[in-house]
Amino acid sequence: MTRELDLIEELRIRADTVTSFIDQYLQEKEPSELYTAAKHLLHAGGKRLRPCMTILSCEAVGGNPEIVIPAGAAIELVHNFTLIHDDIMDRDDLRRGYPAVHTIWGNAGAILAGDTLYAKSFELITQAHAPPAQTNECVRIIAEACVEICEGQWEDIEFENRDHVSEDEYLMMVEKKTSALYAASAKIGGILGGAERRVVDALGEYGRLVGIGFQIYDDVIDLRTPEDLLGKNRGSDIVKGKKTLIITRAHELGEDIKIFGKKNASSEEIDQAIHQLEECGSIDYAETKAIKYIQKGKKMLKILPNTPSKQLLLDLADYMITRRY
Amino acid sequence: MTRELDLIEELRIRADTVTSFIDQYLQEKEPSELYTAAKHLLHAGGKRLRPCMTILSCEAVGGNPEIVIPAGAAIELVHNFTLIHDDIMDRDDLRRGYPAVHTIWGNAGAILAGDTLYAKSFELITQAHAPPAQTNECVRIIAEACVEICEGQWEDIEFENRDHVSEDEYLMMVEKKTSALYAASAKIGGILGGAERRVVDALGEYGRLVGIGFQIYDDVIDLRTPEDLLGKNRGSDIVKGKKTLIITRAHELGEDIKIFGKKNASSEEIDQAIHQLEECGSIDYAETKAIKYIQKGKKMLKILPNTPSKQLLLDLADYMITRRY
Repeated sequence: MTRELDLIEELRIRADTVTSFIDQYLQEKEPSELYTAAKHLLHAGGKRLRPCMTILSCEAVGGNPEIVIPAGAAIELVHNFTLIHDDIMDRDDLRRGYPAVHTIWGNAGAILAGDTLYAKSFELITQAHAPPAQTNECVRIIAEACVEICEGQWEDIEFENRDHVSEDEYLMMVEKKTSALYAASAKIGGILGGAERRVVDALGEYGRLVGIGFQIYDDVIDLRTPEDLLGKNRGSDIVKGKKTLIITRAHELGEDIKIFGKKNASSEEIDQAIHQLEECGSIDYAETKAIKYIQKGKKMLKILPNTPSKQLLLDLADYMITRRY
Repeated sequence: MTRELDLIEELRIRADTVTSFIDQYLQEKEPSELYTAAKHLLHAGGKRLRPCMTILSCEAVGGNPEIVIPAGAAIELVHNFTLIHDDIMDRDDLRRGYPAVHTIWGNAGAILAGDTLYAKSFELITQAHAPPAQTNECVRIIAEACVEICEGQWEDIEFENRDHVSEDEYLMMVEKKTSALYAASAKIGGILGGAERRVVDALGEYGRLVGIGFQIYDDVIDLRTPEDLLGKNRGSDIVKGKKTLIITRAHELGEDIKIFGKKNASSEEIDQAIHQLEECGSIDYAETKAIKYIQKGKKMLKILPNTPSKQLLLDLADYMITRRY
């Protein structure tokens, strides 16, 4: 527990640097209302796990963490852009306990707020304090991650309309939708920190595996964490008909979740469905899977020398499956 | 007229190269339906004016046009991304005579199709056959243009809810929403063609001025071109309540356009409103403005040696205000 508290403090320091940088980067821009919309979720909290991974990766390969702040900020902007657009697509009205961007500025405003952050992130990455060839590689990595995010989100939506989704299909979707950006985060930290290719590749693999574990565990959290801590409606994935690993597993076990995809289910019905998923073991199943991905991801870091930053990357991996929200 | 026909043939050759390149670049990607949606408007026509400007600018500074094809394709993808998202925001159901992307794949599908093209364009620009520092500058220029496009589109929507918009405000909006990408197109052609800084700047200014003329004239076309040629509803800007230069001018002249912003206006009412705008001279006023911007833009090219490619850039500028759709 002390280690987790230490980690959270170490993350907070780096997260604050990134947030300040973004705030300064986006301040006093016009039209001001567009930028207020674009910054809305940034100011609604968030742990900045991805830029922290970039900074820690840079540190762990012996790089100067100062030089990756713009790149880390760029990654956080990409993340925020995806949240804004996802909330429109998934018709989610709450995010981190705050109203989603589209509930305040409408769909048009939210589309534009996301598009602006998207462009700003590429603008930012070109300002990395690095040789142009390295910067260029970072642009390519982020662009490719963005393509994967779109492909994964498309599949996630498409899965809602399908009767059956296999575990492999789910995992491939998550790898694109969520873990591609974690892989990019760690890789870019390594590249800008001056690491050699095999170290960069190992960091990318660490990010990829940890990212998959993160998303699987995120679906667990959606069912186990109380709403006030969660910042959104508990069990929202169930009523939206999201084919999470928990659901695909329950279906494989022959469980029939009656309110699956039922938008107007009552809290009691949702509690009952969650109880059913606990009883059949599918939530535990997902949790175990998440733990395995995290363990595999941590192994990738063997290539790094033992330093406090490496330890923080290991602790960050563990945190993905110990956090409550 | 022969010169215009020659130009159209010269543009067609270059446009075909860009289209083939994009087709090949986006072929056999999964999920295939996402890419079908993303390519929908590309296959619905379009003149590829922006990538043609990039290629011609490269040629006119003595560069090898082959090397700017990926960059030209990237710019065309940015343009298509903005069309897809704009159609959602403006609730336009027709584009180039084809159903808009969101009418077939829904808002979520269209948001993702646009986001995918956005990412693909940055992926593409990193593949420019150029020294990394040049590529990097191109990424920055496109990213900055994308930011401006978002800011301009935000203002365009915001203007719909305002009683009064001045001519200057309209022109500043257009400069961001439309001409920023033309400026980027010409600049990038110059940079990748190896031009020196003052030539690159002159090309950027050419693109900026010609882009403003293009948009003003586009609003003229919306009122003067028959629907079958236009590929969308004639006078759509009027019923949507768009504050074009034609409208701001009419308002200045004290004209009251009764159906302005009236979504369900009849064809007769629209014809009448267009007649009123012709009579008060505001359409001619806009046309004259457009011509002036084009003339100013052409003057910027004095810095270039006289070559067939320079002549095509001059003809392309003229084409902006002679085309009928």
